[in-house]
Amino acid sequence: MFELDPRLAADTHPVGRFALSRLVLMDDRRCPWFLLVPERVGAREIFQLSPADQALLGQESLNLAAALSHAFRPDKLNIATLGNLVPQLHVHHIARFRDDALWPGPVWGRGPAVPYDALGRDAARSALLPYLAGFVREGW
Amino acid sequence: MFELDPRLAADTHPVGRFALSRLVLMDDRRCPWFLLVPERVGAREIFQLSPADQALLGQESLNLAAALSHAFRPDKLNIATLGNLVPQLHVHHIARFRDDALWPGPVWGRGPAVPYDALGRDAARSALLPYLAGFVREGW
Repeated sequence: MFELDPRLAADTHPVGRFALSRLVLMDDRRCPWFLLVPERVGAREIFQLSPADQALLGQESLNLAAALSHAFRPDKLNIATLGNLVPQLHVHHIARFRDDALWPGPVWGRGPAVPYDALGRDAARSALLPYLAGFVREGW
Repeated sequence: MFELDPRLAADTHPVGRFALSRLVLMDDRRCPWFLLVPERVGAREIFQLSPADQALLGQESLNLAAALSHAFRPDKLNIATLGNLVPQLHVHHIARFRDDALWPGPVWGRGPAVPYDALGRDAARSALLPYLAGFVREGW
C-alpha cells in the first residue's frame, strides 16, 4: 500500500489528491512550494511509470503549474524532480518571485525552512485550491 | 525566428534536435548534464505551450531521461525547469551519482563549471546518442 515517505510527511502539510498524485504543501513559507507525489509504491523516476501514469502526472503537473500561476502571480515557476535525498518520486512546483529570499538561486539546500503558522498554511492552501476545483479533492 | 539564448549558447555544446527541442550538453563535466530547449520564440513556462507542444516536450523529456539512464547508469536523474536567470524555456536533465562532486545537493549555483576538453565532450555525446536514434538528428 502506498505511504508517503516519512521525511516528506514530516516536511509537508496535506492539501489534497489528484487522480494519481497527492498534493502537499512544503512547510516553508519562503515561497509557495507544493509537491506532487504519485501514489505508486516504489516509483523513483518518471520514465519508469506506465505510459498511462506518465500522462496523468504530466497533466497534473500542468494543472498545478497553471493554478500556481493564477493563484500567486509569480515571476517564474520552478518545477523539478530531484530525489537525491528522498527517493520516493515527487515533483516540486514552486512559485518564485524576484523579491523572494532565495531568488535567483534554486530553493534546495539553501538553509533552514521557515515554517508556516496555522494561518499562513491555511492561506496558502486556500489561495491555490479554487484553481484546482474538479481536479483535486481535499484531504486523504 | 527561434534562437538559442546567448547565455545558454555560451554554456553549452550542440548535440542535436528532437522534433520540438534542441538538445545541448552543458559544458560542465561534473555530471552528464543536458538541456532540452523547445524551439518556440518567447516560451517561458511549459503550461503556456500549446497542448501539442506540451505533449511533444513531455515525450522528448521521457525519451531523454530513458536514454540518460541507459547510457550513464546514474543513481538518480534530476529533471528541472527553473529559468530564474535565463527565462528562455529549457529543461535540465542531469545524471547524478552518489560519488559525483555535487551529490546529494542540486547542481545549480554550486560553484564554477568544470569545462570539458574536446575528447570528453565528444565522449558524452557519443555515449548518449545511440539511445536516441530515431528521435534526434545530430547538429542544427
